[in-house]
Amino acid sequence: MTRVLIIGGGGFIGVKLARALAAQGALRGKPLARLAQADLRAPDPVAGAEGLALDITDADATAALIGQGWDVIYHLAAIVSGQAEAEFDLGMRVNLHGSLNVLQGARALGTCPQVIFTSSVAVYGGDIPPMIEDWTALNPQTSYGAQKAAAEFFVTDMSRKGFIDGRGLRLPTITVRPGKPNAAASSFMSSIFREPLQGEAANCPVGEDYPIWHCSPRVIVKNLLHAAEVDAAALGQNRCFALPGRTDTVAEMIAAMRKVAGDEPVSRITWNRDAVLEKIVMGWRAHVNPQKALALGFVRDASFEDNIRFFLEDDRA
Amino acid sequence: MTRVLIIGGGGFIGVKLARALAAQGALRGKPLARLAQADLRAPDPVAGAEGLALDITDADATAALIGQGWDVIYHLAAIVSGQAEAEFDLGMRVNLHGSLNVLQGARALGTCPQVIFTSSVAVYGGDIPPMIEDWTALNPQTSYGAQKAAAEFFVTDMSRKGFIDGRGLRLPTITVRPGKPNAAASSFMSSIFREPLQGEAANCPVGEDYPIWHCSPRVIVKNLLHAAEVDAAALGQNRCFALPGRTDTVAEMIAAMRKVAGDEPVSRITWNRDAVLEKIVMGWRAHVNPQKALALGFVRDASFEDNIRFFLEDDRA
Repeated sequence: MTRVLIIGGGGFIGVKLARALAAQGALRGKPLARLAQADLRAPDPVAGAEGLALDITDADATAALIGQGWDVIYHLAAIVSGQAEAEFDLGMRVNLHGSLNVLQGARALGTCPQVIFTSSVAVYGGDIPPMIEDWTALNPQTSYGAQKAAAEFFVTDMSRKGFIDGRGLRLPTITVRPGKPNAAASSFMSSIFREPLQGEAANCPVGEDYPIWHCSPRVIVKNLLHAAEVDAAALGQNRCFALPGRTDTVAEMIAAMRKVAGDEPVSRITWNRDAVLEKIVMGWRAHVNPQKALALGFVRDASFEDNIRFFLEDDRA
Repeated sequence: MTRVLIIGGGGFIGVKLARALAAQGALRGKPLARLAQADLRAPDPVAGAEGLALDITDADATAALIGQGWDVIYHLAAIVSGQAEAEFDLGMRVNLHGSLNVLQGARALGTCPQVIFTSSVAVYGGDIPPMIEDWTALNPQTSYGAQKAAAEFFVTDMSRKGFIDGRGLRLPTITVRPGKPNAAASSFMSSIFREPLQGEAANCPVGEDYPIWHCSPRVIVKNLLHAAEVDAAALGQNRCFALPGRTDTVAEMIAAMRKVAGDEPVSRITWNRDAVLEKIVMGWRAHVNPQKALALGFVRDASFEDNIRFFLEDDRA
């Protein structure tokens, strides 16, 4: 029997992951004994799950909830890039100290539970060669990236110590994400598809040549499930690595939307540059060679056309 | 006028740095208005300095002491590698949280003071190409390395935010260090020269082909002084980089000692391998191409013979 806790279980990935777990009813070859979605406000759980309230900046509360006993802990909770940039101390509290609270809580179980941590491609950037390899320096250009990158070291180190069985996944930008725009600097990378596909206008704040390293929600959920299945020994010493994604420019992605959904949605995009946002996202990297993840069996989208189709099937409001 | 605080000012580098600062009486072209050595126990200060007690794990005490006002803060204090490996939580408290307390204290001054942070070549290792370049991933193989690497991200990020003017220097192994063996896994890298040169026996726990990336205390102090002089704009976005050093094997270093000090000291070395220690130090890297530091004017030893001579001149007990 397997007990699975999703921290950040109220976010859109957390919900999709919970739904996928409930649907398959098992993980690592064992039936689910317990499935919980924890978030700052207890989420409305998916069928088969519980919704729990957890503030990961509260070390005692985090230790208590994790202390109930879990075999696999997904830690997806974070202050997103734009907000962590605007509110430095809040980002530090949640993304660094909160993540440490989760890791220490998992360690305290004494059972070496799996902790699957979502990091981000925002850990890369700056004066490093254009193609990101598995051995390329993390060189974050934002506070969010710095906090994620720092937390990664403890996922790996605490795994080496045998405290946890950590797996840190550097997610590409996830598009098309459902819902509303948020404070992530990458928010437009979904808005310019999601809003037009729902009959609304959206602004693109960067030029059409801007390249994006991206992944669909459906493939991310598949990779998060796979992360729990990978043999610990196969991961090697460094437990953190870039997930596969695709590199496409805004223009290529819009062409894909046109192919799937016709001309009308494209006409709803406006093009007003935003210098502040552009400065953040130009610090990100779009060319990644995720050899380690591919060797471990993680997957990527076949095309952005597929991704548009997934959105229309799964998420259109 | 310049006010300089050395945290970890009671350690051997801190003392040498304080002495060098007091001797030159100025930094960044301005006379010293205040020079203080802070450590867990207030150090006996060098002539011209004050000795202050500071526990950097105490956020309030750290904020209060730093709040007195400083233009340049050297943060050299750390739990060394062997001890941080044995006492994980202590290492986290001092090397990560203590460093964050120093950075936050400096930020709270509101004057964007210089913070010169000593990181370590222990941030490298594992599955990365043999030669460390400026863009090579930090891939620590020890808790000490993980804690230093994580702190580096905040030196850079808080500099980008304009909170501090940070400079993070990845020190090579410093040999020949004066004094007694300590809990650093690298302790033998000084012992096998220091003890024999002082008429005592010392054990070498690794084979003679083991390569070491090293630097003399005299050159480290020179580089720490230089770190305060480098123009902030020249540092680029990533404020942390490897200092220059030399790569020599144990055999080459012993040959250098023989050349300077004759056969007698070499005969005092015993050769008993230590598997635990070897596992730690084999995770370190000895081949580094410190282009950024060299371009910024940091220097390295001309030879290990020089280094032996420096020890005989400066430090022999």
